[in-house]
Amino acid sequence: MTARIAILGASGYTGAELIRFLAGHPAFRVTAVSADRKAGQSVAEVFPFLRHLDLPRLVRIDEIDFSSVDLCFCALPHATTQQVVASLPRTLKIVDLSADFRLRDPAAYQEWYGQPHAAPDLQAEAVYGLTEFYRDAIRGARLVAGTGCNAAAVQYAVRPLLSAGLIDPDEIVADVKAGVSGAGRSLRENLLHAELSGGTHAYSAGGRHRHLGEFDQEFSAIVGRPVRIQFTPHLMPFNRGILATCYLRGDPAAVHAALAAAYGAEPFLRVLPFGALPSTRDIAGSNFCDIGVIGDRISGRVVVVSAMDNLAKGSSGQAIQNANLMLGQAETAGLMGPPVFP
Amino acid sequence: MTARIAILGASGYTGAELIRFLAGHPAFRVTAVSADRKAGQSVAEVFPFLRHLDLPRLVRIDEIDFSSVDLCFCALPHATTQQVVASLPRTLKIVDLSADFRLRDPAAYQEWYGQPHAAPDLQAEAVYGLTEFYRDAIRGARLVAGTGCNAAAVQYAVRPLLSAGLIDPDEIVADVKAGVSGAGRSLRENLLHAELSGGTHAYSAGGRHRHLGEFDQEFSAIVGRPVRIQFTPHLMPFNRGILATCYLRGDPAAVHAALAAAYGAEPFLRVLPFGALPSTRDIAGSNFCDIGVIGDRISGRVVVVSAMDNLAKGSSGQAIQNANLMLGQAETAGLMGPPVFP
Amino acid sequence: MTARIAILGASGYTGAELIRFLAGHPAFRVTAVSADRKAGQSVAEVFPFLRHLDLPRLVRIDEIDFSSVDLCFCALPHATTQQVVASLPRTLKIVDLSADFRLRDPAAYQEWYGQPHAAPDLQAEAVYGLTEFYRDAIRGARLVAGTGCNAAAVQYAVRPLLSAGLIDPDEIVADVKAGVSGAGRSLRENLLHAELSGGTHAYSAGGRHRHLGEFDQEFSAIVGRPVRIQFTPHLMPFNRGILATCYLRGDPAAVHAALAAAYGAEPFLRVLPFGALPSTRDIAGSNFCDIGVIGDRISGRVVVVSAMDNLAKGSSGQAIQNANLMLGQAETAGLMGPPVFP
Amino acid sequence: MTARIAILGASGYTGAELIRFLAGHPAFRVTAVSADRKAGQSVAEVFPFLRHLDLPRLVRIDEIDFSSVDLCFCALPHATTQQVVASLPRTLKIVDLSADFRLRDPAAYQEWYGQPHAAPDLQAEAVYGLTEFYRDAIRGARLVAGTGCNAAAVQYAVRPLLSAGLIDPDEIVADVKAGVSGAGRSLRENLLHAELSGGTHAYSAGGRHRHLGEFDQEFSAIVGRPVRIQFTPHLMPFNRGILATCYLRGDPAAVHAALAAAYGAEPFLRVLPFGALPSTRDIAGSNFCDIGVIGDRISGRVVVVSAMDNLAKGSSGQAIQNANLMLGQAETAGLMGPPVFP
Repeated sequence: MTARIAILGASGYTGAELIRFLAGHPAFRVTAVSADRKAGQSVAEVFPFLRHLDLPRLVRIDEIDFSSVDLCFCALPHATTQQVVASLPRTLKIVDLSADFRLRDPAAYQEWYGQPHAAPDLQAEAVYGLTEFYRDAIRGARLVAGTGCNAAAVQYAVRPLLSAGLIDPDEIVADVKAGVSGAGRSLRENLLHAELSGGTHAYSAGGRHRHLGEFDQEFSAIVGRPVRIQFTPHLMPFNRGILATCYLRGDPAAVHAALAAAYGAEPFLRVLPFGALPSTRDIAGSNFCDIGVIGDRISGRVVVVSAMDNLAKGSSGQAIQNANLMLGQAETAGLMGPPVFP
Repeated sequence: MTARIAILGASGYTGAELIRFLAGHPAFRVTAVSADRKAGQSVAEVFPFLRHLDLPRLVRIDEIDFSSVDLCFCALPHATTQQVVASLPRTLKIVDLSADFRLRDPAAYQEWYGQPHAAPDLQAEAVYGLTEFYRDAIRGARLVAGTGCNAAAVQYAVRPLLSAGLIDPDEIVADVKAGVSGAGRSLRENLLHAELSGGTHAYSAGGRHRHLGEFDQEFSAIVGRPVRIQFTPHLMPFNRGILATCYLRGDPAAVHAALAAAYGAEPFLRVLPFGALPSTRDIAGSNFCDIGVIGDRISGRVVVVSAMDNLAKGSSGQAIQNANLMLGQAETAGLMGPPVFP
Repeated sequence: MTARIAILGASGYTGAELIRFLAGHPAFRVTAVSADRKAGQSVAEVFPFLRHLDLPRLVRIDEIDFSSVDLCFCALPHATTQQVVASLPRTLKIVDLSADFRLRDPAAYQEWYGQPHAAPDLQAEAVYGLTEFYRDAIRGARLVAGTGCNAAAVQYAVRPLLSAGLIDPDEIVADVKAGVSGAGRSLRENLLHAELSGGTHAYSAGGRHRHLGEFDQEFSAIVGRPVRIQFTPHLMPFNRGILATCYLRGDPAAVHAALAAAYGAEPFLRVLPFGALPSTRDIAGSNFCDIGVIGDRISGRVVVVSAMDNLAKGSSGQAIQNANLMLGQAETAGLMGPPVFP
Repeated sequence: MTARIAILGASGYTGAELIRFLAGHPAFRVTAVSADRKAGQSVAEVFPFLRHLDLPRLVRIDEIDFSSVDLCFCALPHATTQQVVASLPRTLKIVDLSADFRLRDPAAYQEWYGQPHAAPDLQAEAVYGLTEFYRDAIRGARLVAGTGCNAAAVQYAVRPLLSAGLIDPDEIVADVKAGVSGAGRSLRENLLHAELSGGTHAYSAGGRHRHLGEFDQEFSAIVGRPVRIQFTPHLMPFNRGILATCYLRGDPAAVHAALAAAYGAEPFLRVLPFGALPSTRDIAGSNFCDIGVIGDRISGRVVVVSAMDNLAKGSSGQAIQNANLMLGQAETAGLMGPPVFP
């Protein structure tokens, strides 16, 4: 039986990426798409690359009959999301791609987002969507909160190492190189081609990036005490891909072995041979995440590098992977398309 | 039943693109891959983005047992191709991606390629692989010659118009913008990122580009007398995509109507509404070709613009589309993946 | 003696480019800069790349004392320009970089810009700023109108040929590839890196681009009767540079000889050897314009390609070249910096 | 009096960049240029962007009469450089841009470059070319060794802090993002546009990059005991620019104050206000280096980011700055051109 899928916020990049993946999904069918400011338009008008698809017309959220929807992807901006989700039927399965339900602690939410949460009960209900580590909870969840894209990239590199006690939790530096599509389709001067291409710079440096809230939450839970990492994202002059270079303290061989063991059976996590490091070019357009480990010449220091597509494994691909679990589908359904290179 | 597929020249971009598309093909399985200089390596070593796939190891061509191959894609360099194909079993179905069998006339081949053809009988046997226009012949063919990527882009824009007598055959100017992957993985100074990015230039201008041989052959055949067009390719600072801006003489509305009618039932040719023009971004990574028509302010002049991915619809996608026909599969099998944007 | 220079609209790309060139000018000093919405900020805040320069703070236009200004560059948006210029002292020398004074005919202005001109007397007074062809008039002018960047690129390729009667005026096709900085720093979705990079498309096709008004005006004046050309601009995924591929009817050798003769003594126009074609990479960041000529295989057809930097020779460099003439400086003062490659 | 300048290895990017800067130099004139494999060609043939310059023809090194040369820039490949320099007249002033004379210790050279040095006496004679820190020695030097580009970027961020004892020498992590022109004009697959654009990856990770030899030498000398840092370079999909993100342990305010004090009078080092971080876009094409400091949320940790153009301040600009000192010119002569943005 084909599940009926709604996508709220289909005029942004993560919305389009959902539609792209779902076009090849064997058991999901997109039956409703919303985009408030572009309601009445066709998807093809907003995203001409999808013009061959037979899709419903864009509507306002309040025009959707959710009683005939099996699962709803919510790709709306932060803050408005919590209000929209609160207004949806309590029985509707939801995969949210915003930041609104990633943090479980209301105080942490307020600290990082500057305002109290408008739906604290939903915040408590939401399951953190890092599939490989919350698989069972996701299977039974009604509301899953997609992770931050940078947050996912670093967690894949670090979580099994923290769990196994192989690295020093107080000595983690994550230098992240992030493609610009992660900033969305918003009209900001620094996202213009003329401003962005041909160079790079750090942003939200010094511990101000909101994904730190996720690191704090997840890593502290693993270690059992407050953990704070250093995280500096850099805006890259390319569209898709995150490269997370993680400077860690631990034994390189043990680190590699732990990651290889943790991810050996995972369909989307590709651990490279020891000493080989990944490239974002090798995962772009796909739901794969590549992870490499190398030892430093300084004894006891190890560098773990992960690469994933922020729109796919870092957002819409992850969301579909979770939706597959929530609806009893094969976890990989619709997601095995290879990366696109060159 | 699954067809067994060999790919000769699997270490180049068109080889990799074949593997990428075939990874999602329901009825084809890659059972042999060759790359003479990289024989012994795995595909993952040569193309790490494909590292999750279960593929045979790269071998030399002479190591392949062609008796257990149903169809062979030949993605070898020009000139060596004709020698290799001549050495293959006469019963093997072959889709060639090189330039070696595109021209039917031995004299034309010699004129454009500077040497006599080494396998004139195969040259005569080969069917020109522009699927939508040679569909029946391809279905029954043993050897299909893939078209030039620029040649395909312009022909999709122009052929139905020439057939219908809607444009002046002596007044065709095709200004083509071609992504750099069309030049292959060869080590040439002008293909370096430092040389190529951030700018553009024309190349093989003035009527020297070899794809003109294809235009001459095909357009003359349609019109019934020698036809010569002007064609200037420009090297673009992006990897995938060809945009062909065709300056024609004819009635814009009639031109649009003819293209819409000709391609209305085609699965991969997307004709835009009159006045809308395509972008290469909307087809990259896919087997689609978008076509737009606009009238000029000068009466009787019309601009037709086509956009396709040179590695996909312009090469490997086309090749698989033809192989589908040759092996009795659905023509679209494995090829319906949407473009990747952004 | 050092001339005192004001720049109105210094927060846009052409404003910044003026400052960049003037930083090395031996006889001009920037004494006032305006940017209405950013008044009060320093230039370094708006353009950090200029942070080493000692520049006045940005002010509103009405805060500038024009009695102590020798020449004013006006880099304001179209339409508002004519109102600002009308309000400036009648004695002030002005080089305008907008489109407002390019067309001499009020009817043509209204046709292309959709409204009547607000300062028709100034429109009549303005001298068209294509330096090499209006040198004497510019020397004596009070108000010079900078040309469109695409308009300049094509005119350099074509004007001497029309003047000499070497080409057919009714058979000119200009296919232009234009870098994105020509669109300015405006917040438009299609100018985002995620939308623009990695591909190309035509825009304002079919004879709708406003620079056609300039072609009509200039080419008709040369030929002595109405001339209409075809012109299709394409947005390129790079920041600086215009490549104009001009398809013409004439004798290639004569065309090359005429351009070589016309520009032999010009400091900024570099005519390449016959058969060689230019690249935008070879002029980026400089005031040079490269021009190449090649014959087509079809007898009597010739392709002329010009390349220039839209922000430099196509706008701010041209403006300074004109200002040099207006203030009795060496025409090349401040403008001889080589292109930046790679 | 104008100094006569020779450039050996003028067909590479650093050679071209020397010519570009010297075109505007008030007191230096290029009188000889060599390029062994391209001897006999003009510079314009090898670098068309320089076609307007009046330059001597490329010759072989042995064709140059060094008795009429005042200073020689040597932009040859590593290893061959030491043999060429050894063969030059002992009286000739030389600024070398290769890696051959950067390390003073023959053992260190052998360790990092895998072979004994062929000219150990010259190795001992050479002065390390980081201008701001070796100014006096450079003034009196005959042979100056240009620094590695990455090495310069990190040293500008770190040296004054080590000298003042403000940071922990054993806790330095330098994550470097390096533009591709630093790899030169060599024909390597991973430098092709199709391979490099649109993504990033780390290279020479784990302590294998040769610039570590420079860090070891310089930082150990400052601290007075062996110092080893962590350094991971990443290849960026742009041509010019290095961004060095340095993770340090120290007091952020003190770190910023020390850098501001150390560089306050330097013409090319632009220290940003506390909390602001640089972009490579703001220095591309120029001899400037921008430096920013921000504190981390973790107390006692500070991030210093430096940005410079690898071809300019990281190589050819630095070389000219040193040559200015060696020949008694103003240190900034020819080097004050602003960056090129966008």
